Amino acid sequence: MITREAVEAKVQAALRENDLDVLVAASPWNVAYTAGTSFFTQRTIPERLALVVMARGRAPVFVFCTIEAEHARTESWITDLRGYTEFADRPIDVLADVVRELGAAGGCIGIEKRFLVAKNYDELHEALPDAAIVEGDGVFDRMKAIKTPEEIDWLRQTILWTDEAVATAFTAARPGDTERQVGDRMIAYCRDKGAGGLLHLALSTGPNLPRVHHEPDDTPLAPGGVLRTDFGMFWGLYVSDIARTAFVAPPRPGQRKTYQLLEEMHQTVIAGMNPGVRACDVYRLCAATFERHGQPFPMPHVGHSIGHSVHENPMLHPFDQTVLEPGMVLMLEPMIPTPEGPFHTEDMIEITAGGHRVLSRSRDWSAPLVVG
Amino acid sequence: MITREAVEAKVQAALRENDLDVLVAASPWNVAYTAGTSFFTQRTIPERLALVVMARGRAPVFVFCTIEAEHARTESWITDLRGYTEFADRPIDVLADVVRELGAAGGCIGIEKRFLVAKNYDELHEALPDAAIVEGDGVFDRMKAIKTPEEIDWLRQTILWTDEAVATAFTAARPGDTERQVGDRMIAYCRDKGAGGLLHLALSTGPNLPRVHHEPDDTPLAPGGVLRTDFGMFWGLYVSDIARTAFVAPPRPGQRKTYQLLEEMHQTVIAGMNPGVRACDVYRLCAATFERHGQPFPMPHVGHSIGHSVHENPMLHPFDQTVLEPGMVLMLEPMIPTPEGPFHTEDMIEITAGGHRVLSRSRDWSAPLVVG
Repeated sequence: MITREAVEAKVQAALRENDLDVLVAASPWNVAYTAGTSFFTQRTIPERLALVVMARGRAPVFVFCTIEAEHARTESWITDLRGYTEFADRPIDVLADVVRELGAAGGCIGIEKRFLVAKNYDELHEALPDAAIVEGDGVFDRMKAIKTPEEIDWLRQTILWTDEAVATAFTAARPGDTERQVGDRMIAYCRDKGAGGLLHLALSTGPNLPRVHHEPDDTPLAPGGVLRTDFGMFWGLYVSDIARTAFVAPPRPGQRKTYQLLEEMHQTVIAGMNPGVRACDVYRLCAATFERHGQPFPMPHVGHSIGHSVHENPMLHPFDQTVLEPGMVLMLEPMIPTPEGPFHTEDMIEITAGGHRVLSRSRDWSAPLVVG
Repeated sequence: MITREAVEAKVQAALRENDLDVLVAASPWNVAYTAGTSFFTQRTIPERLALVVMARGRAPVFVFCTIEAEHARTESWITDLRGYTEFADRPIDVLADVVRELGAAGGCIGIEKRFLVAKNYDELHEALPDAAIVEGDGVFDRMKAIKTPEEIDWLRQTILWTDEAVATAFTAARPGDTERQVGDRMIAYCRDKGAGGLLHLALSTGPNLPRVHHEPDDTPLAPGGVLRTDFGMFWGLYVSDIARTAFVAPPRPGQRKTYQLLEEMHQTVIAGMNPGVRACDVYRLCAATFERHGQPFPMPHVGHSIGHSVHENPMLHPFDQTVLEPGMVLMLEPMIPTPEGPFHTEDMIEITAGGHRVLSRSRDWSAPLVVG
């Protein structure tokens, strides 16, 4: 979705701007970005490190376990490939060798301090005692926050499929169906469109509603109940994430009203998501909007960037002063707490030169969907 | 599956035996073990830390993001619950407060150095400058390696369902079906039995076979082809993992013979998996068996323990000297590299007082399954 050329230009600029000699990607999301591929074992077997080593004026080097050699050879755009033998070699030693080879053993090395684990961090300090090992997370955050047009096209297509999956499964649901049946239809819809595995599936009704991240079980949809989901899948190297709230017929008094209020407040905040506004300003706008409508506002954040992982920076929380720029893609997800559980909605907003564009609505959600 | 009482007894014994004042669980797998629950956001939003703080003679303390408060209150057996507000509080500061409250600020604190990230590790050193912060990973490994009878029952049931899913989907497959269709049937079978999300799904045929962790795509099953999978699902707080190789009718000359050789060598190694044998001895037995049959043996490991995550210790590799004991549950997964790609099988072996028991065969795999 993003080209090798675009990534390499961004990386070289970031190395210069941040006075780094070397930048090392280690997380599945930053390896995906900088190598053009990632291995699912990075998530399931985290000790099996994969590392992309980037230095000024040099081609990137990809360090991975030999078990993944065929995958790296066929899927990555990186051509300088270094396999290590699991258990016999320590991946951090291979990394240190590459850093020495790049002449940077005494240089400034940016690592993912939010991903690399303490054990590897200690090993890296031992292996490169003369290097300055610094936090490189923000470097990746800033590179990745501005999407290319190709990335925006893909994020839009996959969030629309994800939204359609929810709309289709909710429309097909009937009272008596279980949470699990509804969730399975959502997953199947996305798999059919080409999704990879499930990223997350919270889906709750009735007594399960107060648990924000309840995983679907055999609880049936009952008349008058709320049906809420927060759902995401893997799509190639990217992920999707959407939250929707619906009702099981017949809706109870007040449910529509609360839904409409959530939608109205949501649209108010979307209207304020424009270039030049800071992430914390969007949070404050949401807080002020809730306050004006007399609604409790316990949310620590109201949204986030998205890409190769679900919560990327900037985050719409009170301490993030990032200025919104065209090319950013943000999820906005306000939630009204109610006695029966939270009402929740979520949309993907692209920041454009002229303002913003909502990417995630496959249907008109301004009125609630009523099941059955 | 494991009771609070069993865990607490193991934890207290481990604190004494390892001269630890405090032991902190941070990974989804060790939080699941010590709190009786985990949050899926631990996997999807890793910065949202959840921590179980255990000290000698004290009840455990559970630290989590307030977003998960209702889940923690209803699902964990821990009653001392401390929520932190995301972005406003630093979870490591809350951990340090709990450690001080336990009178252990100058004590020996075991953490998961294979899980806790460098950023949190630095924060912890700053917050508790007088503490000795040591590697606690092995403490968890040793506690968890010996399963209770209830855990073994659950692992056995869920690995049988996983094996049945493969057998059923392979039996139903026909030449022309795609990899993705076969994989989706495996997932659906498990979801129907109550599984959570997908852990991993490698599934390959034809040209995709050389890639060990190929994710299923639209490649069709073709006559004479190999069909290989390595597949696991989440089942409550535990996971499953199975690898199987089959053929698309009509099998090509030599395929059956290689399959039978793999099966024969696999059974030879299983026969050697008994109490008193070391993990590295099992690896060496496998290497020697392959050598005796003139087979290349490039594998860095041939198996692993399993539980709340897929690769747990002990690992069947040349450097793991753990002595096998009754109650251990190990996956053995030899692979024969062939010009068309690896042939691979995998079984779950319980180490018993009298020897061992194979837990994972829902059908007779001694002869190959032929599709179509």
